[in-house]
Amino acid sequence: MGKPGAERPGLIDAEGRVRDLSGVLDGLGPQALSAEALARLARLDPATLPVVQAERFGVPWTGIGKIVAIGLNYADHAAEAGMALPAEPIVFLKANSSLNGPNDPVMLPRGSEKTDWEVELGVVIGKVARDVSLADALSHVAGYCVVNDVSEREFQIERGGTWDKGKGCDTFCPVGPWLVTRDEVPDPQALGLWLDVNGQRVQKGSTATMVFDVATLVSYVSRFMTLHPGDLICTGTPPGVGMGFKPPRFLKAGDTMRLGIDGLGEQGQTVVAYA
Amino acid sequence: MGKPGAERPGLIDAEGRVRDLSGVLDGLGPQALSAEALARLARLDPATLPVVQAERFGVPWTGIGKIVAIGLNYADHAAEAGMALPAEPIVFLKANSSLNGPNDPVMLPRGSEKTDWEVELGVVIGKVARDVSLADALSHVAGYCVVNDVSEREFQIERGGTWDKGKGCDTFCPVGPWLVTRDEVPDPQALGLWLDVNGQRVQKGSTATMVFDVATLVSYVSRFMTLHPGDLICTGTPPGVGMGFKPPRFLKAGDTMRLGIDGLGEQGQTVVAYA
Repeated sequence: MGKPGAERPGLIDAEGRVRDLSGVLDGLGPQALSAEALARLARLDPATLPVVQAERFGVPWTGIGKIVAIGLNYADHAAEAGMALPAEPIVFLKANSSLNGPNDPVMLPRGSEKTDWEVELGVVIGKVARDVSLADALSHVAGYCVVNDVSEREFQIERGGTWDKGKGCDTFCPVGPWLVTRDEVPDPQALGLWLDVNGQRVQKGSTATMVFDVATLVSYVSRFMTLHPGDLICTGTPPGVGMGFKPPRFLKAGDTMRLGIDGLGEQGQTVVAYA
Repeated sequence: MGKPGAERPGLIDAEGRVRDLSGVLDGLGPQALSAEALARLARLDPATLPVVQAERFGVPWTGIGKIVAIGLNYADHAAEAGMALPAEPIVFLKANSSLNGPNDPVMLPRGSEKTDWEVELGVVIGKVARDVSLADALSHVAGYCVVNDVSEREFQIERGGTWDKGKGCDTFCPVGPWLVTRDEVPDPQALGLWLDVNGQRVQKGSTATMVFDVATLVSYVSRFMTLHPGDLICTGTPPGVGMGFKPPRFLKAGDTMRLGIDGLGEQGQTVVAYA
């Protein structure tokens, strides 16, 4: 938590209060995400850490090397869109420069008319994963978080080339508020997730309808590129994106998004004009 | 130069010798790429720096936030491939985990049968570029380098989704040997570039036939995502990639690549099997 660029590490205690970890840890970088480092943290007595008022949360950890994202990964979303299920995961990358605090404004790119929302389960890598088996995949996961995979549909689909042009705009990757460690998420395939625009529920789904589950995605992606501690996988979005409305519905300045996943907390953004 | 993970910064003097900068600089990170920092370096007398034998070069600078790559950006390559010129730049991302020293081995991914080569002019950002004009674009460039945009064509084209799956494999982004500062490259659109496989010239071209020139690319990409110091843009490849051979020709373990660009030096890789 803290101002942009001056965030301090913290944890949430059993009563939901923010406790300052900056006396214990330099930061929550890739090294802090190993099983050993997380076990050390778990042995701390939160009552020994100062309670702080967090006026702002940043991205919950630092040192993200890459953001791997998965397209069309919910069966009900594919059905809604009238598209066939992919035979294997659709993989793209979001630019690291799109990372954004969970409650910081989302800025429309210059000329954007089709900026859209996507609530997604984020998977945070804790251990180097290279060509890992399905059975071994989840042991490489440090934890989970809420991600809004904000997407400019014209840039993504109508401007030539790959999706990355519409996925990596500045502020297009709000992450957090928390990184919830794997031990606190007994079944990542049984999480409800939702997103509201201006207070109206537009997305509602469950990770139970993922086409490729978290373990499959970690194993699959690790065959193409090594996943390193701190890397983030965005696992696709359930039904209800603006592009799927009839007629389509996109974000404009002043709109608000609020989104959450069971047990992983909530985030919210105000949409602002290009400036 | 130095062993992987323990590289020290250096410069090439007028006689081509490597001089150790580690007594002067902590490293060549994003801060070292600003016009002011590069001007301070230029004022050093190289004769005051120790000459070293560099047994290995790493990527010439550190702290690369993203690798933005451009597809189908040479008119003669598009003609060769029988494809129409793109109406605007095709943009994709290479995973940062694909970065590789310029002369380190390139490893075939597991199951790869279509790994291919692409010599490219790399553009290194020195100053934050957000929605910059064409006229102002080059002032955001710190310098240039040689890049081999190694690509697995089956993963890129035949496995669903976007190109990123076949572009971001480990070792698929050899960069260097040098970062040549912008003042030493009077015209980035007049550089010959070439690539040999097993001593046979397969690619030969000139940046003069780029569809979108360097200034256009910097300006264009900066409209979609802010470019930060240390970011790398790979500007596309001239004719002669393996995919374009009839029949197509791909890399196998034991093959060697050697590639270079006028004034930017040469790099070379041995292809090794998955291990």
